Amino acid sequence: MTFPGPVDRRNFLSGGAGLLLFTIAGERIKADGPEPEWTKLADQIRTPPKVRAAELRQLPGLPPAPAPAPGGVRREYWIAAEKVHWNIVPTRRDEMMDRPVKDRAKFTAWCYRQYTAGFGAPMGPATMPGPTLEAETGDTLVVNFRNKLPVPATMHPHGVLYSPEMDGAYKGTYTDPSGFVKPGATFQYSWDCRAGTEGVWPYHDHGPLDPAPLYKGLFGAINVRPKGVARPDVDHYVFFHSLLPGATGLAKPFMCINGRSYAGNTPELRAKVGQKVAQHVIGMSNDFHTYHLHGHRWTGPDGRVVDNVTVGPADSYTLTFTEDNPGRWFYHCHVFSHLHEGMNGWYVVDP
Amino acid sequence: MTFPGPVDRRNFLSGGAGLLLFTIAGERIKADGPEPEWTKLADQIRTPPKVRAAELRQLPGLPPAPAPAPGGVRREYWIAAEKVHWNIVPTRRDEMMDRPVKDRAKFTAWCYRQYTAGFGAPMGPATMPGPTLEAETGDTLVVNFRNKLPVPATMHPHGVLYSPEMDGAYKGTYTDPSGFVKPGATFQYSWDCRAGTEGVWPYHDHGPLDPAPLYKGLFGAINVRPKGVARPDVDHYVFFHSLLPGATGLAKPFMCINGRSYAGNTPELRAKVGQKVAQHVIGMSNDFHTYHLHGHRWTGPDGRVVDNVTVGPADSYTLTFTEDNPGRWFYHCHVFSHLHEGMNGWYVVDP
Amino acid sequence: MTFPGPVDRRNFLSGGAGLLLFTIAGERIKADGPEPEWTKLADQIRTPPKVRAAELRQLPGLPPAPAPAPGGVRREYWIAAEKVHWNIVPTRRDEMMDRPVKDRAKFTAWCYRQYTAGFGAPMGPATMPGPTLEAETGDTLVVNFRNKLPVPATMHPHGVLYSPEMDGAYKGTYTDPSGFVKPGATFQYSWDCRAGTEGVWPYHDHGPLDPAPLYKGLFGAINVRPKGVARPDVDHYVFFHSLLPGATGLAKPFMCINGRSYAGNTPELRAKVGQKVAQHVIGMSNDFHTYHLHGHRWTGPDGRVVDNVTVGPADSYTLTFTEDNPGRWFYHCHVFSHLHEGMNGWYVVDP
Repeated sequence: MTFPGPVDRRNFLSGGAGLLLFTIAGERIKADGPEPEWTKLADQIRTPPKVRAAELRQLPGLPPAPAPAPGGVRREYWIAAEKVHWNIVPTRRDEMMDRPVKDRAKFTAWCYRQYTAGFGAPMGPATMPGPTLEAETGDTLVVNFRNKLPVPATMHPHGVLYSPEMDGAYKGTYTDPSGFVKPGATFQYSWDCRAGTEGVWPYHDHGPLDPAPLYKGLFGAINVRPKGVARPDVDHYVFFHSLLPGATGLAKPFMCINGRSYAGNTPELRAKVGQKVAQHVIGMSNDFHTYHLHGHRWTGPDGRVVDNVTVGPADSYTLTFTEDNPGRWFYHCHVFSHLHEGMNGWYVVDP
Repeated sequence: MTFPGPVDRRNFLSGGAGLLLFTIAGERIKADGPEPEWTKLADQIRTPPKVRAAELRQLPGLPPAPAPAPGGVRREYWIAAEKVHWNIVPTRRDEMMDRPVKDRAKFTAWCYRQYTAGFGAPMGPATMPGPTLEAETGDTLVVNFRNKLPVPATMHPHGVLYSPEMDGAYKGTYTDPSGFVKPGATFQYSWDCRAGTEGVWPYHDHGPLDPAPLYKGLFGAINVRPKGVARPDVDHYVFFHSLLPGATGLAKPFMCINGRSYAGNTPELRAKVGQKVAQHVIGMSNDFHTYHLHGHRWTGPDGRVVDNVTVGPADSYTLTFTEDNPGRWFYHCHVFSHLHEGMNGWYVVDP
Repeated sequence: MTFPGPVDRRNFLSGGAGLLLFTIAGERIKADGPEPEWTKLADQIRTPPKVRAAELRQLPGLPPAPAPAPGGVRREYWIAAEKVHWNIVPTRRDEMMDRPVKDRAKFTAWCYRQYTAGFGAPMGPATMPGPTLEAETGDTLVVNFRNKLPVPATMHPHGVLYSPEMDGAYKGTYTDPSGFVKPGATFQYSWDCRAGTEGVWPYHDHGPLDPAPLYKGLFGAINVRPKGVARPDVDHYVFFHSLLPGATGLAKPFMCINGRSYAGNTPELRAKVGQKVAQHVIGMSNDFHTYHLHGHRWTGPDGRVVDNVTVGPADSYTLTFTEDNPGRWFYHCHVFSHLHEGMNGWYVVDP
């Protein structure tokens, strides 16, 4: 029987984050780093045949964007994938435990960023999660995606309807141009939000370096709202994910909500008594989580009243309720080690 | 390629329990111990401002307990948190595998214990889980909580309705007196069981040492029964949790049901043919579990017939069925390593 | 702060597979091997009293197979448990990442194999999963099970109705003959598929070496179809499981679908536009998984439209949809490390 010594990277991660994460270009990437040189790895990946062919003929032949259903509209976005300086713990404090956080927490993230039409001007910084893509039943989402990263990247949507050419997924020799957008290139995705696709869904990189770019911040939400149904007064998006040494180059892994760790850094969600609140929880890491909200409960889709639910990797779960309980509340992952490594935040309800 | 040597603590835990569990007063507590000196850690935690203020004014100003709804009643409990000698494997046998269990399995647990009114006399020993708090739609639960442990502790309820002052959760400088009940102090919680809170819910410590006290045994169940609905003939409460070296001081971690490991030690659940049976399964550790019952199946809340369901940390799941299959059956977690480390028991149905 | 060296077996597994798996005859079996001598372990297990008694009286006294319900039929199967040479990566390629797989991937698996009546002739090879046992509401499944392995083995069914004598589970001294079928012996199971048992369920070994035989391949599916309801045009069975060094003797663990790893090796599922498709996903390892299908979504049993769901150990989940999206799609576990260690495959839809 041996006892481990001081907590090192390996110990730290064993609570669920895992050590081996994935294999890229034959190299095994470990959660506990060190961070590999991504561009070197990317250079070892062959450009798939259909991508080479499309380059030669300058991307003709793509299927036209599906016409919106009668009454639907075409909603066009300009989204870039970019590097951005990111601070996981800007306040350098953990308000839940009333203690300082001294760990180094800044790194160069890869995030989605929204631009005005024609990539005229940024509409804000690149963020975790990226911009929420909004649609209603019957609309068509047209997303002009520009890759400003040094490695191939993509946008792969969940939930909406799309042809294989619009999958945004690397598939080895079967890869379509949507699944291998080279550095500097632009690709136009079109996704069909017809009846039956309503819901809140993640989108994320699924290119040849998947899931490394996602682990560095390339993810966001799509919200396809049912047409003719009253909207909630507030929508909260909660991505449970981890930022790990193998993807950040930092010494310590962080359990995050929307790219931040610890209450006071994670989003301070807000609502008022009487408002209809929708919270959208999405798993975006290797781990399983449970979402718990203090002082509240809601009726789940199966008719059960709950206040704690399991959300697995890429699962999305929406809870709705009418706010009736003012105060400062916790929302958090109820996996104890995740909660205590930063996966918690404040939900503040005004009277 | 290296091979691990004999199974040590670190190996043992990697099946899901995790190594790093949480951080208390800046100290990283590991699942595989050694157990820290909890009182030393507690001494390093500052008393939050609202708690200090309440001490000065002897706790005036707390909101009055909500009046029960018309037809509802006030249900008052006297519950202490206490130390108790606990044996995880009293029979020293694993009946599933028909083998002796030689590991040291006794430790000093921290458990809830019910007293008669005014803390007159104990109504039984301190146990894992603690006493079940019973209510019906419209009732108010009033829980007088006395902390007989050497560290601050609390009761945090799931599911029921409560104001922030009754949250029972440590929140750093925002902490209310309910979230920091000092050694020797008593706090009166009041929780509203109005319509919409029916269900079986966990309660557990959520104080400044969270989750250490919970990992040492501080958890129990609340059962808010729907008014006017026939009760099941039997209620079984199944807490899936782990007792780990970092919380017990023992050499070996145990996968437990209600504080015991291995069939013959875990609760022998009983019912008779024809009875309406309700089983309430609650996850109370860092791990995800699946509940499986041999020889039975039930209709879940979503209308599916199932005999195996996922239950995550702090999830609670109730299954009901009318008993029709006499015999000696297993109930167990179907995560194979959990099953084999003790998370199984007998369900005996009499004809 | 230390850094791990090259990825070894221990690192490799920490993504969730776990190190300690189970205890057999007092020996702790580790996921990362080496593989123990199973027959030596089996020799240390005492034959349970009821099994010894049955041997003396040549198995009289078993309850007669339940008569099929009016309109139901007796469906009889002859199934053996056998050794079989198995190749986890027959193409030696990972088509998702377009790369060779050089790891040694052949081992001697233990699988179920179907025979003609009276064990006349094999109806195909022994496979992972074993033969699907088909029934309709009201039928009785009668399974003649012959154990051709060198250790005791069984068949334990989920979902269907059976008496304790037909449980197929080792229960220490309480074990019935169905739970301890010795090498060379044959046992007749009878299971009742009455109304209320419809669904797709796993069956698997649950004998005294459980779960080692299951980890070596002893699992399959039961499909109890609702009588009078139109069948889907295609049924796909997707078992998410792992093949680990401790059970295979190989150097590397594999994350598998139906005994294979990596697209091009895992089942290529197929359907045509317009067909009604049913996919049955079953968890058969220590891990939790999420099932994701590209380009598709479906209405879950709780009424939600989803394209990604959590499936825990021994959970079974059926999704159905009418095919409308031709092309080559991925289906995969969305736990990133599982996806990248082989838990993915092609779903090809013809126009």
